Amino acid sequence: MTGPRLALVPGEPAGVGPELCVRLAQAPRTDCSLVAFADPATLRSAADALGLPLNLLHEDEPARRPGDMPLRMFPNANAVVFGHPDPRNAGAVVGALLDAADACMAGRFDGMVTGPVQKATINEGGIAYTGTTELLAGHAGSDVVMMLANDVVRVALATTHLPLRNVADAIDVELLVRVLRVTHEALRTGFGIPEPVIAVLGLNPHAGEAGHLGSEEIETIIPVLDRLRAQGMHLVGPLPADTAFLPRKLAGFDAVLAMYHDQGLPVLKYSGFERAVNVTLGLPYPRVAVDHGTALDLAGQGLADPSSLEAAVATCARMAAQRQAR
Amino acid sequence: MTGPRLALVPGEPAGVGPELCVRLAQAPRTDCSLVAFADPATLRSAADALGLPLNLLHEDEPARRPGDMPLRMFPNANAVVFGHPDPRNAGAVVGALLDAADACMAGRFDGMVTGPVQKATINEGGIAYTGTTELLAGHAGSDVVMMLANDVVRVALATTHLPLRNVADAIDVELLVRVLRVTHEALRTGFGIPEPVIAVLGLNPHAGEAGHLGSEEIETIIPVLDRLRAQGMHLVGPLPADTAFLPRKLAGFDAVLAMYHDQGLPVLKYSGFERAVNVTLGLPYPRVAVDHGTALDLAGQGLADPSSLEAAVATCARMAAQRQAR
Repeated sequence: MTGPRLALVPGEPAGVGPELCVRLAQAPRTDCSLVAFADPATLRSAADALGLPLNLLHEDEPARRPGDMPLRMFPNANAVVFGHPDPRNAGAVVGALLDAADACMAGRFDGMVTGPVQKATINEGGIAYTGTTELLAGHAGSDVVMMLANDVVRVALATTHLPLRNVADAIDVELLVRVLRVTHEALRTGFGIPEPVIAVLGLNPHAGEAGHLGSEEIETIIPVLDRLRAQGMHLVGPLPADTAFLPRKLAGFDAVLAMYHDQGLPVLKYSGFERAVNVTLGLPYPRVAVDHGTALDLAGQGLADPSSLEAAVATCARMAAQRQAR
Repeated sequence: MTGPRLALVPGEPAGVGPELCVRLAQAPRTDCSLVAFADPATLRSAADALGLPLNLLHEDEPARRPGDMPLRMFPNANAVVFGHPDPRNAGAVVGALLDAADACMAGRFDGMVTGPVQKATINEGGIAYTGTTELLAGHAGSDVVMMLANDVVRVALATTHLPLRNVADAIDVELLVRVLRVTHEALRTGFGIPEPVIAVLGLNPHAGEAGHLGSEEIETIIPVLDRLRAQGMHLVGPLPADTAFLPRKLAGFDAVLAMYHDQGLPVLKYSGFERAVNVTLGLPYPRVAVDHGTALDLAGQGLADPSSLEAAVATCARMAAQRQAR
């Protein structure tokens, strides 16, 4: 196995993350090697609950047989009960994420794949935390962009978890230039697209209809696109959001930049939720997360669909290999 | 032919509306009878351009053969050049719409199907006009709701053509109560669904995440839903927009109420643009429009896809028959 070496961080231990990691361990990979950054007892509980084999290995031993899982230990403070997150384990959750980030920054790992976390539980555990993307961006000191992707479309977001009434004021020249530069560069280095074509949505319905339905396209978005086009970027738009996603149009775009969450993500999820992943663009290493939550109601029952974690690992492996090839 | 009698108004004569009407006339219908409210010379030009037969009949004669089209005449002021809208014909365009509305209000017609209009051209023609939906609502004195529908989903909109920065303030209790009542009643009377289930989206990402991402769900949307549920409506939500459209969820909803244009329409158009139609709910008669524009670049060339007009007629015929059956 000479492929990239990826850190696999299950996220909230009481959610479906541990059992999804156990499922992943059932088929040794050919595209990368995985090391779980996790609590061994939790992974064993998940394996027992699912009736699947699990052989936890030292992190430097390779996985050879179904069930093999190299491990770096992050013991939980308290025993895990699936479906019931415990704030006392928040330190282990965040510790595993930050250690994986350190390992990637130091070049000992080539990328990171993360399962779902429970935001409220981490905050209840006394750790200020708004999201893993933000945690990793702060750790690396990077400007990052959240991009959701499936087999149909890649959607980058100019703003993410912002109340709708604050979106229009958040869309300014500086933000858009930064987001487009990060997205453009990541499509080149992480996805191996030499000259990416990015479709940029308008902020307003019909992309403002020449100023009749809002002025942000004329005052902010179009000037930014003109400026970046002059620097060589291939940018299409601003496009009306309702027709930009028509299948025949999507075929011509490497990514779509949506101005806000609910403008870009409904089509992404409708068109292939199971295989959707969340990619953090702009970090010094590839980081890909599942595009689903902790599913506490399903945890420990073997009912959770591993497709998104499988797609996240495959995407991260491709991105890491792409960087290695440069 | 005992089915409903529908007014067919082509809309902008220089666009694709006339040729789509000519295409429709090639197959006499079994679900309704159609009368075009249009300029005969324009329809003949379109038929000639497409090389299709067209026999314009008196409006009371039935269509029997391919090419037959009963007509109520609205002569244009100026000869039409396809692709080049002429503001001097705006009076004929709006006149046909208003006469069809009169005919429906008087019970002489059972519904109206409209082609695409060119908003700017009508305004240039000296007629104040913001859209056909608004024109017909004003004519009838009705509260209306715009709903877009295809074979996959029906999406009603709480707000339509509003700059994004004005959306949050527009969503108030009075608006939501009115929109939900109109939608609920129309699903019953127009679509024959005795107890419709309506999914209501949140305004903010993740439907506000319990107040962490905006307060409108807690302050406005949830109280409205509670109040209307107490009156017997089946309302689901407020739901996060990104996951409400997952195919397995959509199967349980008769319609989705989106808070604004770009939250609801991208999935609608992605999932079936060609067969999408625009239904005006709340009028005293069924009115269905195509869900595409005038396509001036295609007009007169026989390239325009008649699927949306075909779907609009079929939808309007079903709605009219549903009302007659009550």
